[in-house]
Amino acid sequence: MSATRPPTPRWGRFVVEVLRGQAQVDLLPSALTGLVFSIALCAAGWQYGAYGLLGAAVGTGTARLLGVDRGRVAAGLEGFNSCLVGVACAVFLHADHLSTLLVAVAASAAVTVVTAAAARLLGTWELPTFTLPFCLTATALTVAAPGFQHVWHLSDAPAALPGTASGPTALGFTDLWHAFFANFGEIFLMPQWYAGLIFLVGIFLADRRMGALACAGSAVGILTSWALGAPADQVRQGLMGYDAVLVAMALGGVFLVTDAWSVGYAMVGAITATVLSPALGALFAPSGGHALTWPFVLVSLVFLAAVPAFPRLRRATG
Amino acid sequence: MSATRPPTPRWGRFVVEVLRGQAQVDLLPSALTGLVFSIALCAAGWQYGAYGLLGAAVGTGTARLLGVDRGRVAAGLEGFNSCLVGVACAVFLHADHLSTLLVAVAASAAVTVVTAAAARLLGTWELPTFTLPFCLTATALTVAAPGFQHVWHLSDAPAALPGTASGPTALGFTDLWHAFFANFGEIFLMPQWYAGLIFLVGIFLADRRMGALACAGSAVGILTSWALGAPADQVRQGLMGYDAVLVAMALGGVFLVTDAWSVGYAMVGAITATVLSPALGALFAPSGGHALTWPFVLVSLVFLAAVPAFPRLRRATG
Amino acid sequence: MSATRPPTPRWGRFVVEVLRGQAQVDLLPSALTGLVFSIALCAAGWQYGAYGLLGAAVGTGTARLLGVDRGRVAAGLEGFNSCLVGVACAVFLHADHLSTLLVAVAASAAVTVVTAAAARLLGTWELPTFTLPFCLTATALTVAAPGFQHVWHLSDAPAALPGTASGPTALGFTDLWHAFFANFGEIFLMPQWYAGLIFLVGIFLADRRMGALACAGSAVGILTSWALGAPADQVRQGLMGYDAVLVAMALGGVFLVTDAWSVGYAMVGAITATVLSPALGALFAPSGGHALTWPFVLVSLVFLAAVPAFPRLRRATG
Repeated sequence: MSATRPPTPRWGRFVVEVLRGQAQVDLLPSALTGLVFSIALCAAGWQYGAYGLLGAAVGTGTARLLGVDRGRVAAGLEGFNSCLVGVACAVFLHADHLSTLLVAVAASAAVTVVTAAAARLLGTWELPTFTLPFCLTATALTVAAPGFQHVWHLSDAPAALPGTASGPTALGFTDLWHAFFANFGEIFLMPQWYAGLIFLVGIFLADRRMGALACAGSAVGILTSWALGAPADQVRQGLMGYDAVLVAMALGGVFLVTDAWSVGYAMVGAITATVLSPALGALFAPSGGHALTWPFVLVSLVFLAAVPAFPRLRRATG
Repeated sequence: MSATRPPTPRWGRFVVEVLRGQAQVDLLPSALTGLVFSIALCAAGWQYGAYGLLGAAVGTGTARLLGVDRGRVAAGLEGFNSCLVGVACAVFLHADHLSTLLVAVAASAAVTVVTAAAARLLGTWELPTFTLPFCLTATALTVAAPGFQHVWHLSDAPAALPGTASGPTALGFTDLWHAFFANFGEIFLMPQWYAGLIFLVGIFLADRRMGALACAGSAVGILTSWALGAPADQVRQGLMGYDAVLVAMALGGVFLVTDAWSVGYAMVGAITATVLSPALGALFAPSGGHALTWPFVLVSLVFLAAVPAFPRLRRATG
Repeated sequence: MSATRPPTPRWGRFVVEVLRGQAQVDLLPSALTGLVFSIALCAAGWQYGAYGLLGAAVGTGTARLLGVDRGRVAAGLEGFNSCLVGVACAVFLHADHLSTLLVAVAASAAVTVVTAAAARLLGTWELPTFTLPFCLTATALTVAAPGFQHVWHLSDAPAALPGTASGPTALGFTDLWHAFFANFGEIFLMPQWYAGLIFLVGIFLADRRMGALACAGSAVGILTSWALGAPADQVRQGLMGYDAVLVAMALGGVFLVTDAWSVGYAMVGAITATVLSPALGALFAPSGGHALTWPFVLVSLVFLAAVPAFPRLRRATG
C-alpha cells in the first residue's frame, strides 16, 4: 500500500485485473498467464481472444462500478466467469453477429450479480464459487437463445434426446497427444491441440506445481475415458478431459494442502468429473444445453464440502 | 393491539387474511387489492376466481391449523402460493373436473409445508421465499399429472422437445397495449388484457409507487422481448413480461430501499427475467412442465442474495 | 467401552457395520435386519444380494480408510447409500458384466464423499441426508452410462419423452396384496412380492412400531395410486408405493416423536411422495434417468425442514 515505487496508473491496474481474470479461469492469479491465455485463444481464432478479453473487462468493470470488494477485483476473481461467458457467446451464438456482441456484453455484466449471490450462499460453508456463475449464466443463455429470433440465427433447434455412444473407442498415438493438449484448451471451449499447448505453457509460467497437476489431470481424464470406452473422437477434441484438469488443479493445488492424500483425492475427483461429463451432457441435451464446466463445478464443490469429514485432508488457508 | 374499536369477528379476520393472501401474489398486504384481484380473475372466468379464493383459503386455513406464526398468516403470507396453486390447477388440469377441485384442495394444503421449508432454508440468508413454493408444487403437479388417469383427461402428453421461435416478431400498436396489460394478468396465468388492467388497478389501489414500478417492469419486459426478437404472439399474451413486472416490484419497491440505484438494479433484473422465460420453458418442456414464475423467483433470489456485495444497494427493513 | 465381555474381533465389527449399513436403507441400525435384507435380496436373485453386500462393504471400508467419525460408521450410516448404489448397478447395468462389478466398486467408494458433503450442507439445518447421496450418484451413473461403450451393453438409449399413463387402473385382490409387499421390495429396486415380504419381516424384527408405520405407508401409497388412477401394472410391482413406505417410517417413527400429529403428518408426506413418483420419473426420462428414491428424499427433507414452523410437531432427539 505505502510502496515507494511509483504507483501503477489507474488504467494499468485495470488491465492487470482483466488479465488476471483470464488466468483465474485456471485458478491462477497471474496477469502474465492471462496474457498467454489471450494468445492461446487468438491462436484458435482472434474473435475468441477478443470475446474473452471483452468478457473479462466487462465483468471486472461492472464489479468496480457496483463497489465490489477491491481485493476480489484485484485478484481477478470478478473476471474469470465473465471471460468464459464472453467466449461461450462467441462459440454458441457465433462471433460474427452484432447481436452476439451485445448479448456477450450484457451477460458478462449480469454474471457479476450471479457471482456475488453464489459467493454469499456458498460462503456459508467456506466454499468458493468455482465457475458456477459461468455455468448458470451460459446455460440460461444457450437454452434461452433459440427462443429469440434476433439472437438465434440457425434454423434448427439444438434440443435432442441423448443417444448411446458410437464410433471407435481405440486411441492411437495421435489421438493421445492431441487429447492431452486439447484438454487444456477445452476449458476455454477450444478443441485445437496447439491452443491447448499454449494454455499449458501459461499455467507453467504461473506455477510449476499447478502445471504438473494439470498434466496429471489430463492424463487421468484420458485414461478414464479410454477405460470406460468413450468415443475416440470426443477424447481427441478434449471434450472428456477438461473437467479433470480443473479438478486436479483445484483440489490438488489450490484449496487443499498439496500432499499424497490430497493429490490422490484430486485424482479420484478427476475420474469422477470425467464420468460426469456425459451425464451433464445428457441432462441438458433435451433442453438444448451443454455440459460446460458443470462436472468440474459439481465435483469440486462436493469434494471440498466433504473435506471436514476426512481428517487426513487439510484445507489450504488463504 | 389494545385498540378500543370492537375486535373483528373471527371469520372476518380469516376473510381479510385470505384476501391479503391473494394480494401477496403481487407482494402487497392489502385486503382491498386482494378483492380487486378476485374481480380480475372472475373477469377472465369465474372458475379462476373461485379456484384462487379456494387456494388462498385452504392455504391460510392449513397454516392456522398447524399453528404457523400468527404474523405470517395475518399478513397473507400463507395464502399467496396456495392461491396460485389453485389457479394453476384450474388452468392446467381444467376447472370443470371434480378431480381438479380435489387436487387443488390437497395441493393448496401441501404448499403450506413447502412454504415452511423454503422459508427456513432461505431464511439462513435472510431471503424471502417469493413464489418458490408455488413453483415447486405446481411443477411437481403438472409434470406428475399425465401419469394419473383420474387426473389427466387429455389423450396426449404435454412433453415435447423445445424448438426455435417462429412467427412474426414485429409489434403493432394493439400488440403493445395488449401486452402491457396482459403482463399483469399472466402473473395469475390469465392472458386477457382487460383482466390485466383490473389487476393493475388493484396494485395502484394498494401503493402508487408499486404501481409505477409494475408499469416500468411491464415496459422493460416488452422492450427486451422486442429487441431480442420474441414472437409477437407470446408478447401480446403477456407470456414474456409477467416475470419482469414481479421482479421490478420485488427489487425496486419491497426488498430494497427505493432509489435510483435500486430501480436501475430492478430493471436489470427485469431484463434478466425476460431472457430467462424461454430458458425455463425449454428446461421443463421435455418433461411436460411450464416456466410458471420460476424466472421471477430465480432472478429475485439471486439479485437479492447478491446485495451485500454491492454497497450502493440497501435492504429495506421490515 | 470398558465392557468385561471379550471385545468383538476387528473383522467381526466390520461385518456388523456392513449389515447395519444394509438395514439403514430402511432407517434401522440393526445388523440382524441387515442379514434378513440380504436374504430378501438373494431371494430376488443372488447377484443382487452380492452387489448389495459389496456396496455396503466398500462404502463402509472407504469411510474407515478416510477416517470418518467412528460413530457414523458403527451405526451403519456409511453403508446404506453405497449398498443401494451397488444394487442399482446390478439392476441398471446388468449384474453379469465385469464392467458392472468394477463400476459398482468405484461408485460405492465415491458415494462416501458425496455422503460427507451432503451431511455437511444439510447439517446446517439439522437435516439428515436420507438417501440423497445414493440418488445423486445413481442418477449420474445411469445417465452417464450410455455415453461409455464399455459400460453400456445395450444398443438403444434409455432416454425418452414421458407419455400419459395407459392400461387398466382397477386393482384386483392379487394386485393389492402383491403391491402391498412389493412396496417394501422396491426400496431395494426389487419388484417381487416375496422379496418384499422378507424385507417386511426384517423391519418387524428390528422395531415393531417401524413395521406398523411401514405397513401404513404401503397402504397409503396403494390407496393414493388407486384414487388418482395410476396404472395397475405399476402399482402391483411396487413402483408407486416404496417412497410412501420410507416417508412413513422416516417422519412417523425416526425423526419425529411418534404421536397422532406426526403420524398424520407422515401420512400426508406418504401421499405427497406417491404423487411425486411419476413427476420425478418424467423429469429424468428425457435424459435416461430414473425416479429412484428421489420422491422420498425430497418429501422427507421438505417435511422435516418445515417442522420448526409447526409447534404441534416435535423432532426426536438422537
